[in-house]
Parts: sequence; C-alpha cells; structure tokens
Amino acid sequence: MTATAGGPVRVALLGCGTVGAAVARSLVERSGLYAARLGAPVELTGIAVRDLTRARDLGPVPAELLTDRAEELAADADVLVEVMGGIEPARSLVLGALRRGAPVVTANKQLVAQHGPELHRAAVDHGATLDYEAAVVAAVPVLRVVRESLAGDRITSISGVVNGSTNFILDQVSRHGMAFHHAVARAGELGFLEADPTEDLEGLDAAAKIVILARAAWGVDVTLDDVQREGITGLEDEDFEQARGTGQVIKLIASAWRSGAAETPRVELAVRPVSLGADHPMAQVRGGRNVVEIEAELSGVLRLSGEGAGGDATASAVLGDLMGAARRVLATRA
Amino acid sequence: MTATAGGPVRVALLGCGTVGAAVARSLVERSGLYAARLGAPVELTGIAVRDLTRARDLGPVPAELLTDRAEELAADADVLVEVMGGIEPARSLVLGALRRGAPVVTANKQLVAQHGPELHRAAVDHGATLDYEAAVVAAVPVLRVVRESLAGDRITSISGVVNGSTNFILDQVSRHGMAFHHAVARAGELGFLEADPTEDLEGLDAAAKIVILARAAWGVDVTLDDVQREGITGLEDEDFEQARGTGQVIKLIASAWRSGAAETPRVELAVRPVSLGADHPMAQVRGGRNVVEIEAELSGVLRLSGEGAGGDATASAVLGDLMGAARRVLATRA
Repeated sequence: MTATAGGPVRVALLGCGTVGAAVARSLVERSGLYAARLGAPVELTGIAVRDLTRARDLGPVPAELLTDRAEELAADADVLVEVMGGIEPARSLVLGALRRGAPVVTANKQLVAQHGPELHRAAVDHGATLDYEAAVVAAVPVLRVVRESLAGDRITSISGVVNGSTNFILDQVSRHGMAFHHAVARAGELGFLEADPTEDLEGLDAAAKIVILARAAWGVDVTLDDVQREGITGLEDEDFEQARGTGQVIKLIASAWRSGAAETPRVELAVRPVSLGADHPMAQVRGGRNVVEIEAELSGVLRLSGEGAGGDATASAVLGDLMGAARRVLATRA
Repeated sequence: MTATAGGPVRVALLGCGTVGAAVARSLVERSGLYAARLGAPVELTGIAVRDLTRARDLGPVPAELLTDRAEELAADADVLVEVMGGIEPARSLVLGALRRGAPVVTANKQLVAQHGPELHRAAVDHGATLDYEAAVVAAVPVLRVVRESLAGDRITSISGVVNGSTNFILDQVSRHGMAFHHAVARAGELGFLEADPTEDLEGLDAAAKIVILARAAWGVDVTLDDVQREGITGLEDEDFEQARGTGQVIKLIASAWRSGAAETPRVELAVRPVSLGADHPMAQVRGGRNVVEIEAELSGVLRLSGEGAGGDATASAVLGDLMGAARRVLATRA
C-alpha cells in the first residue's frame, strides 16, 4: 500500500505558459467534475516554472503552487504533466518519471518527435505510459483515433493541414487577396508564428507532427530526416494567381502513406504546398483550424478537424490524456 | 489460472450479416496484424447464426465456425461480439456475458438505445466492459472522442448528420433536382432504407444515435421519448425550392445540448430537418457520409466525418473496440 492509496491522484505540472496555465485553471475550476468522473479527486501538487517572478494568468489557482524545483516536484507525483517545451530539462524529467513507473502526459511536440522511441522504451520497460495527444493538432483527437479507434484496421494514408500559422497566411492570400509577404508579416504581428518563424514557414512544425502520426499509425521508426519537406517561403504571388485562375487553393499539406507490402510496410512522408480544388474539404479549412484525413482499409476516409493551437484547445487534449492516466493510477490501487 | 491463460484471446461472434461477415473475414485475414499488435493471437471460436443453410460471403473463414448454438458459444468466450441486431436474444446473451465478467462489443444501436443503462449496470457490477462505437455512425469515432478525448473537458453540444439514408435522399433532391418522392423511391430500390423505412424517414434511427451520444456526453438517463422528433416525410418539393432560392440546403440534423446549470445539467434532444447555408460544413456532407460536431468548453468545435454505414466501415469500429477489449483480457492474465 503506497502513501497515496485511497487518496487523491497527485498531479505535478511542469510549465506554466499558455497551455500550462489553462491546464492548472481547469484542474481547479473543474475539480468537482473530475472527482465525479474518476471517483477520486485530482490534486495539483505544484507547477514548476523557471521564473517565479513572472506574472501569470492563473485565475483561481493558488500562487503558492508555483515552484522552481521541478525535479523534486516531479519525483513525488502519481502523474507527471509536461508542458514546458524544449528538449532539456523536459526529457530528463519525463524519463525520470517513466523509470519509476509513473504515467506521463506531454504536449511537447519536438520532444516526442526527436526522442519518442527512447521515451516509449522507457515507458514499456517500467510499466508506465506516455500520452501526447496535445502534441499533434491540439484538441483534434487524431492520435487516439490512430492508436485506438483504428487498432483493428490498417491505415493506408494520413494527410492534413496541421499548421495553423501557415494556414492563416495562405488563407489571407487566397481569400482576402493580401500579398504573400504582407500576410507573413501580419501573422508575425499577431503572434501566430513561433519564436523562430522558420519552424512554421519551412514546414518543420508540420514535419514533426506527421512523423509522430506515422510512428503511431505504422510502428515505424521514422525521423524528421525522412520527411520530403518544402515550406511556403518559396511561394510567390504568381503561384497564388495561377491557382486562383484555375479555381484552386494552395494549402501546406503534411502527408504520410504506406508503400510496399502490407506486412513489411515502408512509409513515405512529405510536407509541401499543394493546389487543391476549392471544394476539396482540406481547401476549406480556414485560419487556425486544422484538419486531418485518415484512410484505412475498412473504415474508408475519416476526417477530423478543430482548433490546431491555443491554450484552451491544447489543454483539453492534455486533460483528456490526464484523465486516462488517472484512471490507470486508480485501477492499480484497487 | 484460467483455462485460457497464456493462450489466444477467444472471441465469439453473434451474427453474420454484412457487418458480422466483415468482422469474421478481418479476424482471419488480419490475424497476423492483430497478433503482432496484441502480443497474442485472436481466435474466432465460432459465429452464431439463426439459419445455417443461408449462403454467406465469408471469404477465407472456415464454414465450420458457423453454429446455431449461440448460448453455448457465448458462454465460452473471452470477448463476446454481438452484431446480430434486434433486442432478443441479443440482450440476454450480452447480459449473460457481462454477468460472468466478459467484455462485450456490440454494434446494436437499438439494444444500446433501449437497454443501455441496464447493460452498463451489469458491466459495472461484474467488472466487465461494454463498448459500442459501431452503434453510432459506424467508423466515425465519435463515442471514443466523447468518452475519452474529452474526458477532461465539458461538452456543451453535439449535432450532426447521422443517418445516411435520409442524407442520400435529401442530397438527390438538393443537388440533382430529383422530386422528393422519387428520391425516396430510389433510396428504397438501392437498399439504402431499413426494412421498416420509417426507422430512417421518421428520424427514429437518428434519435437512437443522439440518445446514445447524450448519455455518453453527460451521463444523463435520457430515452427515445425525450427526443423532439420530426422526420423528413413532411417535407414537400416547395420546401426544397424555397431553400434553394435562398442558397440553403435542407439536412436532417440530430442534436443534443446542455441547458441549465453546469453542475446539474439538463439535456435537450432533437431530430429535425434544418435549412443550412450551402457553405456550412454540415451542408456539404454528401450521400452516405455522416458528420458529427462536438462543442466543448475548452476544445471548441471538433468535427468528425466518415462513412456512417456499410459492412466494412462498421466492422472497423467493432474491431477497434475488440482490440481494446482483448488488451484488457490480456492485462488481467499478466
């Protein structure tokens, strides 16, 4: 019997940016809902941050929960939630939790894209679990569908508009006739681009997402280097005019598809601008919304769309994974 | 240690119509894939049918698996898959399996709509599980999203085009200018309508689906009688002309939404024809495809679409649930 048997599910949160603050607020604001759903309360034991003095939008969350001692906090949790971003110290903290058998939930796309196989091995070796629905198109539940809903099917391809910033830019040009370089500048002014805008504009963000999806769909050990990648910075106003003239719309499409035999699949991955007929469902995705199409042998084409970014939408996916992890913690106590 | 410890996961299949045959074929054709994913083989122990003499499209499935002794077959399975339809004997067979703690997967919409609460109680009381993703819009993974992906969020509304037959009819009228009564006759000729066409045309099928979704979303004990229901048989050609004149499209929309306070939700349910602007995402769903929109407080609007019927698409959902059930069976043996 552990110290926490029968007690609340103790959750440590690493990171308190837009997503972390939204997760923390919901854990306080919806605590009654979560306790009712789980049959036990969820207790937020602390929020690790780098800078204790920074102002944060924490709503009803007690400021005393903030700490700069991430390692201590992580070592004493039933579930670790990592939304700090970056590779280190996130990787070490996540590995530490997995190695002592604690389930981890993360929204850290680059961590999973670059170190996913290592983290999964640690989880399997120590009877832990690692979930990261929020790392790929925020609240759109594409990983759960790939891993669970289609577990009895065989996926043949995945494609989608998975980067909201470039979609906003392409939308401004296609629908509002803005000049391409103006649209890029506007996205930057609105804070829609990552700190390093090449992440979005050169398709690196989309590449990380399609790598994570391909691994989940086919169990293959692909990396960012396997992605045939072309961003949107090579596009010129003439490309848009030409597309418009033929009733088409340019979208940045990330795709992965199986080639070779069914039993020994090879997987191809690409991120590139594609001209689509204006009535194509992926052509109609506007602004920051994302869409993913999954085709499988039995199911046919499934299409999932929703907000691809934002604190609340990303927190929704984190909290969904967290509830699953909490259920598993409670099941091991029973 | 049970008789099956370490052995295959033994699956009994009740029913061998279009869906049952597709499930059986996949269990044989994809047996290597399933064994690799689970770490143990899945063994189809038998297929219960009413009429052993009827010709069936079983492909590589050994005909010796067919039996008319449903009760015996069901009593000796690790997982029971029920795709026979109808209320009895499906209800008794499912209850029997749940009461001995065996997980059950069903595609039987009317069984779940009419007896879901009773079946869930039996599952909880005996440590079993009951899954029925296939009962609602076939392969579109809406139940898993409601139950799991949004487990940390609070759903405010669900709406969708969830009946393919009526959508086909409305599509023929809106897009191909066919007279309404001709379109109904055409759907009947093509076999798109249920044996009793009022199931589709009067919105009973859609009502059963929205009841199941509302229970999953809010844990409320609603029934078919709670649905404000209006089918498409009251529509006349003038209604379609009027809609067309204003750039709108008529769709049969099933919807459920929360009213009242968040902590003591009341839920309203409706199925009725609605005029939508032609560029509304739900207006663009064609033929037999279905779409469901789920709105939650944090996630915003998620939209899921895919094939809403058909043997293979429905089998994909059954098999996804079956893999989850098989994993739980294997976990209890470990």
